[in-house]
Amino acid sequence: MKITDVKRIHFRGKATWQSDPCGHGHPGPLRDSPMSILVVETDEGLRGYDVPTMYQEPYDGIDIPKWDGGKWDLSAPIKKPDADPGLERLKSVLIGEDPFARERIWDKMHKMERMGGTVSQRLVSSIDCALWDMFGRYCNLPLLKLLGGHREQVLAYGSTMCGDHWEGGLNSAEAYGKFAKKLVEHGYKAVKLHTLMDEHWDGNNWVGSPDVNYDIECCEAVRDAVGPDIDLMIDCFHHYDRYSALKLGKAIERLGFVWLEEPMDEYNVSSYKWLCDNLEIPVLGPETAAGKYYTRAEWIKYGASDLNRCSAGDVGGITPAMKIVHLCETFGIPCELHGGGPITLAMMGAMTIPGKYFERGLLHPFMNYEVCAPWLNKMIDPMDKNGMVEVPHTLPGAGVDINWDYINDNLL
Amino acid sequence: MKITDVKRIHFRGKATWQSDPCGHGHPGPLRDSPMSILVVETDEGLRGYDVPTMYQEPYDGIDIPKWDGGKWDLSAPIKKPDADPGLERLKSVLIGEDPFARERIWDKMHKMERMGGTVSQRLVSSIDCALWDMFGRYCNLPLLKLLGGHREQVLAYGSTMCGDHWEGGLNSAEAYGKFAKKLVEHGYKAVKLHTLMDEHWDGNNWVGSPDVNYDIECCEAVRDAVGPDIDLMIDCFHHYDRYSALKLGKAIERLGFVWLEEPMDEYNVSSYKWLCDNLEIPVLGPETAAGKYYTRAEWIKYGASDLNRCSAGDVGGITPAMKIVHLCETFGIPCELHGGGPITLAMMGAMTIPGKYFERGLLHPFMNYEVCAPWLNKMIDPMDKNGMVEVPHTLPGAGVDINWDYINDNLL
Repeated sequence: MKITDVKRIHFRGKATWQSDPCGHGHPGPLRDSPMSILVVETDEGLRGYDVPTMYQEPYDGIDIPKWDGGKWDLSAPIKKPDADPGLERLKSVLIGEDPFARERIWDKMHKMERMGGTVSQRLVSSIDCALWDMFGRYCNLPLLKLLGGHREQVLAYGSTMCGDHWEGGLNSAEAYGKFAKKLVEHGYKAVKLHTLMDEHWDGNNWVGSPDVNYDIECCEAVRDAVGPDIDLMIDCFHHYDRYSALKLGKAIERLGFVWLEEPMDEYNVSSYKWLCDNLEIPVLGPETAAGKYYTRAEWIKYGASDLNRCSAGDVGGITPAMKIVHLCETFGIPCELHGGGPITLAMMGAMTIPGKYFERGLLHPFMNYEVCAPWLNKMIDPMDKNGMVEVPHTLPGAGVDINWDYINDNLL
Repeated sequence: MKITDVKRIHFRGKATWQSDPCGHGHPGPLRDSPMSILVVETDEGLRGYDVPTMYQEPYDGIDIPKWDGGKWDLSAPIKKPDADPGLERLKSVLIGEDPFARERIWDKMHKMERMGGTVSQRLVSSIDCALWDMFGRYCNLPLLKLLGGHREQVLAYGSTMCGDHWEGGLNSAEAYGKFAKKLVEHGYKAVKLHTLMDEHWDGNNWVGSPDVNYDIECCEAVRDAVGPDIDLMIDCFHHYDRYSALKLGKAIERLGFVWLEEPMDEYNVSSYKWLCDNLEIPVLGPETAAGKYYTRAEWIKYGASDLNRCSAGDVGGITPAMKIVHLCETFGIPCELHGGGPITLAMMGAMTIPGKYFERGLLHPFMNYEVCAPWLNKMIDPMDKNGMVEVPHTLPGAGVDINWDYINDNLL
């Protein structure tokens, strides 16, 4: 079998996100938005897909402001994006290839990431995920079983969005506590705070106010609100100095938190080693540092990582991410995967030395997460009342049940 | 699908090996020998197999002596072995399991290896290999493609048996040189010496004479015989002290060898680190040290391993061995697999940061390796005139073409 085409199906989807000036996501109004499914095709008619699955809706009656205070213009026309030059470049090594030669294909794509300029890690990841989806469709097996399958259920944590400045939002320690309590009432047995990280250069000055003391107040409020039996984690501003990070770490140690995530720039590896040495609470990372599995291996060797971290999207696909899972297993270090979705669930399901927690969200008081995206027939990660999520195992491949009627009615 | 049975099919096979008192293999006369295929069965009729594939025949007219000088008794009756208590114990965690849940199954078996007493690593490996074979048979894909596929051909090295004391055997530096030349004429582009390692306790005294100076003479004779363009390696007596190992390493550095393999006890990890630090030539290991992927990870972290090493059989199956391959990839360290056979070929084929050399043998002047075992329809690893071996990729699973007529005619 040979790959004959790699392309995107563009369609009019739905989005609710807005980014702050630092790139963090916050709620926005529900609106049309261009989206795409990546498709790999073969000469035998077999296809593999990488499908966006993130979706939520504002609760009725919520009027979400723009971050910068401006007005929403929801009337802008939705148009098909221009051709992706990275995808065009990758086609030169994909067309004619054996779709099951994932290692060889990934190796070629990885080399072009360096030389390609336009070839992004996210794109490489998307193609690798589509190849795994195709593998599963060919074999009529879910990704979980292709990867070896260890467990069919994983424990979710409610992962909040970053702090904001909105009334009714995540604008105070009290607001975090109230929201965390609501999440626990909903069924979550674990909650992670993304605290305020709005520091940015406004053209003239640094503005915004990430602050370890405020983070600690938020953590205290959440612990007070949920009681002692809920697992808690924090992902905070990523550019604290090592002494601020230590102060935060010591405080959440006292509060019985599970981990401290990315409190410093991830290229400051010596400080991560120092922080691991000086804290009892596990430090989690790296998440965003470049270098894929090489970087994870060096962090482990160097003792800079109590809990390791990756996702398929962070490192160029399932192929390299499973190597990180296996690396972690060989050192007995849990790998806590970053972000949600079906790929993360399958990878978690296949771990023998497990990452324990599935990141569900990001969540916000304004938003209803418990809805199915209109371009899917079924939600990816429904959670039961014990806070558990099933690993997709009924459909072949990635297990995404695509609503082709919706896609075809909304093609761009 | 559920596993319904795990069993062995016992048959009257053929063997030619004899062991010296240290457990090393040497040629013996061709004779009947009890052999077995491990079978995993499911409620849907699907089966997976682990099949022995090692076989060779003495050349016509060769009369192979017994190592101890005694007489061969080839008339002893061949009987079916007793039930394997380890297999009976493992059944308790295998029957009823999803055969695709390899990670969960392996985890259970691994835990029973510690607690089970009778559960051996080789048995765990055999079951894991049968599960991978079944996975491939279900998907109609060869193991190479299940593992991701990177290359369809690998470079072989002719791996000699250990030194002996037989005329016409491997009993002198000159004999090694002559045999190496013959291997190169046959097509090999690489040759590995297993030198003399016959030291053992005879009940009263240490006897035998492994000797670094003799090893060096053998290496010199082989380099002289094959010229500068053939890749050479050595696997020597495994209990030299570190200064002897260094002397041997320096000598084969001068002779342009590719690696030095297991010159010291593999639990002497500090000496391996010291040897790696003091030699330019890569030191290869660990091979026989217990501890599976954990041990390989520690060797890498500690700098005790220039080239890493494992096989499915050495670490409990394909599942853990691929974790070692992936561990090595995350550190950019080649993993040179131990021993031949279809599983090794598939794993080599799926490496992105490759081990380079496929171990073909073990070879001896008395023995013809280029023959198909009578219980197979096709040889596993025919070599072309460029010294390359194809990774099995035409049959599903492990790619072993079993001669069921032979098996059924010779059931025990």
